[in-house]
Amino acid sequence: MPDDLNTDFSVTTGELKGSRKIYISSDTDPTVRVPMREIDLHPTANEQPVRVYDTSGPYSDPNQEIDIYKGLPRLQEKWIRDRGDVEEYVGRDIKPEDNGNAGEKYLAPEFPVKIKPLRGKNGAAVTQMAYAKRGIVTKEMEFVAIRENLGRAQCKHALKRDGEPYGAAIPDFITPEFVRDEIAAGRAIIPSNINHPEAEPQIIGRNFLVKINANIGNSAVTSSIAEEVDKMVWATRWGADNVMDLSTGRNIHNTREWILRNSPVPIGTVPIYQALEKVDGVAEDLTWEIFRDTLVEQCEQGVDYFTIHAGVRLAYVPMTASRVTGIVSRGGSIMAKWCLAHHKESFLYEHFEEICELMKQYDVSFSLGDGLRPGSIADANDEAQFAELRTLGELTKIAWKHDVQVMIEGPGHVPMHKIKENMDEQLKHCHEAPFYTLGPLTTDIAPGYDHITSAIGAAMIGWYGTAMLCYVTPKEHLGLPDRDDVKTGVITYKLAAHAADLAKGHPAAQARDDALSRARFEFRWEDQFNLSLDPETARDFHDQTLPKEAHKVAHFCSMCGPKFCSMKISQEVRDFAAAKEAEEGMEEMSKKFKEQGSEIYQPKDAAE
Amino acid sequence: MPDDLNTDFSVTTGELKGSRKIYISSDTDPTVRVPMREIDLHPTANEQPVRVYDTSGPYSDPNQEIDIYKGLPRLQEKWIRDRGDVEEYVGRDIKPEDNGNAGEKYLAPEFPVKIKPLRGKNGAAVTQMAYAKRGIVTKEMEFVAIRENLGRAQCKHALKRDGEPYGAAIPDFITPEFVRDEIAAGRAIIPSNINHPEAEPQIIGRNFLVKINANIGNSAVTSSIAEEVDKMVWATRWGADNVMDLSTGRNIHNTREWILRNSPVPIGTVPIYQALEKVDGVAEDLTWEIFRDTLVEQCEQGVDYFTIHAGVRLAYVPMTASRVTGIVSRGGSIMAKWCLAHHKESFLYEHFEEICELMKQYDVSFSLGDGLRPGSIADANDEAQFAELRTLGELTKIAWKHDVQVMIEGPGHVPMHKIKENMDEQLKHCHEAPFYTLGPLTTDIAPGYDHITSAIGAAMIGWYGTAMLCYVTPKEHLGLPDRDDVKTGVITYKLAAHAADLAKGHPAAQARDDALSRARFEFRWEDQFNLSLDPETARDFHDQTLPKEAHKVAHFCSMCGPKFCSMKISQEVRDFAAAKEAEEGMEEMSKKFKEQGSEIYQPKDAAE
Repeated sequence: MPDDLNTDFSVTTGELKGSRKIYISSDTDPTVRVPMREIDLHPTANEQPVRVYDTSGPYSDPNQEIDIYKGLPRLQEKWIRDRGDVEEYVGRDIKPEDNGNAGEKYLAPEFPVKIKPLRGKNGAAVTQMAYAKRGIVTKEMEFVAIRENLGRAQCKHALKRDGEPYGAAIPDFITPEFVRDEIAAGRAIIPSNINHPEAEPQIIGRNFLVKINANIGNSAVTSSIAEEVDKMVWATRWGADNVMDLSTGRNIHNTREWILRNSPVPIGTVPIYQALEKVDGVAEDLTWEIFRDTLVEQCEQGVDYFTIHAGVRLAYVPMTASRVTGIVSRGGSIMAKWCLAHHKESFLYEHFEEICELMKQYDVSFSLGDGLRPGSIADANDEAQFAELRTLGELTKIAWKHDVQVMIEGPGHVPMHKIKENMDEQLKHCHEAPFYTLGPLTTDIAPGYDHITSAIGAAMIGWYGTAMLCYVTPKEHLGLPDRDDVKTGVITYKLAAHAADLAKGHPAAQARDDALSRARFEFRWEDQFNLSLDPETARDFHDQTLPKEAHKVAHFCSMCGPKFCSMKISQEVRDFAAAKEAEEGMEEMSKKFKEQGSEIYQPKDAAE
Repeated sequence: MPDDLNTDFSVTTGELKGSRKIYISSDTDPTVRVPMREIDLHPTANEQPVRVYDTSGPYSDPNQEIDIYKGLPRLQEKWIRDRGDVEEYVGRDIKPEDNGNAGEKYLAPEFPVKIKPLRGKNGAAVTQMAYAKRGIVTKEMEFVAIRENLGRAQCKHALKRDGEPYGAAIPDFITPEFVRDEIAAGRAIIPSNINHPEAEPQIIGRNFLVKINANIGNSAVTSSIAEEVDKMVWATRWGADNVMDLSTGRNIHNTREWILRNSPVPIGTVPIYQALEKVDGVAEDLTWEIFRDTLVEQCEQGVDYFTIHAGVRLAYVPMTASRVTGIVSRGGSIMAKWCLAHHKESFLYEHFEEICELMKQYDVSFSLGDGLRPGSIADANDEAQFAELRTLGELTKIAWKHDVQVMIEGPGHVPMHKIKENMDEQLKHCHEAPFYTLGPLTTDIAPGYDHITSAIGAAMIGWYGTAMLCYVTPKEHLGLPDRDDVKTGVITYKLAAHAADLAKGHPAAQARDDALSRARFEFRWEDQFNLSLDPETARDFHDQTLPKEAHKVAHFCSMCGPKFCSMKISQEVRDFAAAKEAEEGMEEMSKKFKEQGSEIYQPKDAAE
């Protein structure tokens, strides 16, 4: 059996060490049951448990039975059907080319459970945007409101509004009505194909927590279905809010089906990749019909958002000819080649309204692709890039007319001083549709460390207003990410997204920083590990220097040793200050000393 | 033999793979011979070799014999003696407490070569600042001018001045006179104790390349002399411009001697650490006399800069009492404790002029310590921090009066939106003395990844004007960095410093990005590896997916596979554009298509 047919599934389950899985239900509807993770602190802390956002789905719930062959519970299905505007129908047959014409020997097994697809009745738009515009608050909106509020409810007594939001308007509390209004205005999306009811709803928008996306996928060169399902579960365990399946090669359809049926987060794809496989990789042979058929295939499977490079117009292609790195987007280069070869306008651009008509029946969101994004510092913010961006803005309006949800993809490689212009231009030309950027990488000279070169740019652009950050792993530009790379990429982007939330002034973001810092100051080592984004690595690094269990309750660390600890001295300072204050008023005492100090120390000509 | 006496030295030598060690000599003085690294590109590139900054010293020169027991060549000695203003004298005897009263069994061996120290004759200031103010261009200044110019000379034909310098004034070319003037103004320093002539001069200032510092050092808990010397060589091999020896515990004196005699970069220390060891770790027992004696000891050994926390004044200590993390600087907490225990002004503050009188005779630079820096997001930019900063500004003026070079240390933990204020306040209150920051970390929730949380802040504050970035390793807050952590910290900070240079608009910084990006676009894999900050990791990551040698000349990578490559398609686009241009003028053709495109595609109500 070829490697890529491996369905010997093994995924990581169970609670994260130091965490409990909890659910918060809506007051009005117990089926709106929002998962969170709660971290208990040491009794000496005398603090409430800390609740954190949880993207890991049923896998981290010890009370749920996981069976990859059955797929996850269909959480949203009842909500969708209850709205009464969808119909079940006999979907498109799976065709041999959907799996790259893989012969029997090479064909990956189909997912064992067959489910009939749903679509909007009579071509109706069954999108969150359509409901929002009609004033309807959906269960999905209620769900994300509870989900986004978690820290806020806990910090109610001491919400901190410290930050520079650059025009974002983050409320103290998130109501379902606020969610609805943001979606109606196009400022936020809930990616939620009605055929992916397994996903836990989640919102992407500038006035909500910054989200991250992890890319996975088979390649023509390597990897297997089991590996990709494992990576998806693994990525969400560490905090991926979304996963894109960028599989190429054979077995794309079947790989995706296993991923979708087992994914607790929205799944995005780049349909042109699969379409290209159907024409044996010859870009010129692509047709609108083949592409449309691929969209139908993926709509019925339940893909939540499509990257579509409809902004790569014929006229823009020559603008890239003098670039250092030309066109680095795969989708962009495919479309550029097609346009040039036929000397015709892009069929994605020309058929854009038809694409909208299709996607609205399933509530697939657009992720309008930046096919002309810069692939190097030299090419950042150039004519080609911004010409395409303006076209994406034009297409956004068309999608919204059809009630299709939209986010806009952004670069890429951008030096720090040119990052803000990207955000400003996007806001201006794309009417505040959520921005979804890859990094950007702030220098080209560190392959092997591009998760870091890009985390710098990602944190900054997240601060400026980007709603979702697409992760970059250490293997970027060099190879395919393995499991460890996926985790490194996810944690790196979680910290960048969190740094952005802090800087934007999210009212509750700092609560976790503060809880961890208090734990650090008080040498509650276990609390410090458990509160961190990656408790396993934190613990492991600590134990490399001080392995004994006793050291984890020690009031010192390996950096200073027992005698020499600033935290310890600092605690003494605090105790001393408290004692003195009781005694005679520290404030007064220090004032006295300031005077005395000035008297003792009289530098001659100090102000020269 | 206890572990920490290990002098079984083994350091990494030889050229970096793909690089050649070269030297550029001054036109007027062949002893001013500046090391650089040159990377040859594949002949198909048809490009000049790329020259990069080289901090690795003689270790990477295959023509130099390395003997840790002899120490490095004393590059600067002749320059220093030729100035005629220094005298050799019988230095202070090494006392048992200098090595923590280590008994014979625990005493690390002394460095075998004894050298008599130099000092300024009759207490004269022999500092670079003193010469600069008198209009003298020293050899050291000539050396750093050549060193800083490297990329500029090569890019002469196409210097790029793209960036936002935030008030920095980076010239197109660096002359020795410009260096002199910057030092005279206090805007830059060349840390260069006359007793550390082994170091290769290097300049730290806002109008020069952003520098990085790596911390090493024995701790009371673990590590050995051999390990620390190895870490120093290893850190400079990957790009550390400076190294701080933060050793504590026994054998501080002897450890430092081995490091200094073998270090090609300036070495900084925090003398209060050693002073504290001399009083058995009891902060209250510290005296000005013990501290002063420690300074003399370290001046004579050749330490290039001292972190001195003279800004921690008695009156500021109570300001930290309500902080989440109190005082996290070791030096700061020691001084705070001393002040409180004695209820007296800091002896560092009171004896500051005497400290200047001493340091100027050796040209030891101040690194005025931020003893009250914030140790958590919650404590950033608070009253205590900025009160101390203003005092550091006051002390800067005093040091300059004595012609002592100064840099100012900065935080710490700061959320993104509060970083710029740190730079602005520092510039305002410290009269443009170079800023030297630790990170700052932009969130507290990612222990194990604090090289990344801090690289975000470091890149930003470097852009805003910080002259040197002190690295943070993945072990920060958790344990002692090992060799791998040191490398990760150094590379992470090199990329952050470079990102800052790009954003500031350094005229030649982008040359390396461009060369690497061209290599990437043209699938010159070996060039891409060799041009990267860490060629070994880049190559290793590539080979994990495509291990065969043949793949390193392949015109594809593991991400897309051979059929599906955007770079390849993009090259076709470029060729096509070129061909068409020749034929009929692509520009015209694309204009035609824009019109045609608009005609074909007429969305109804697109502008709703």
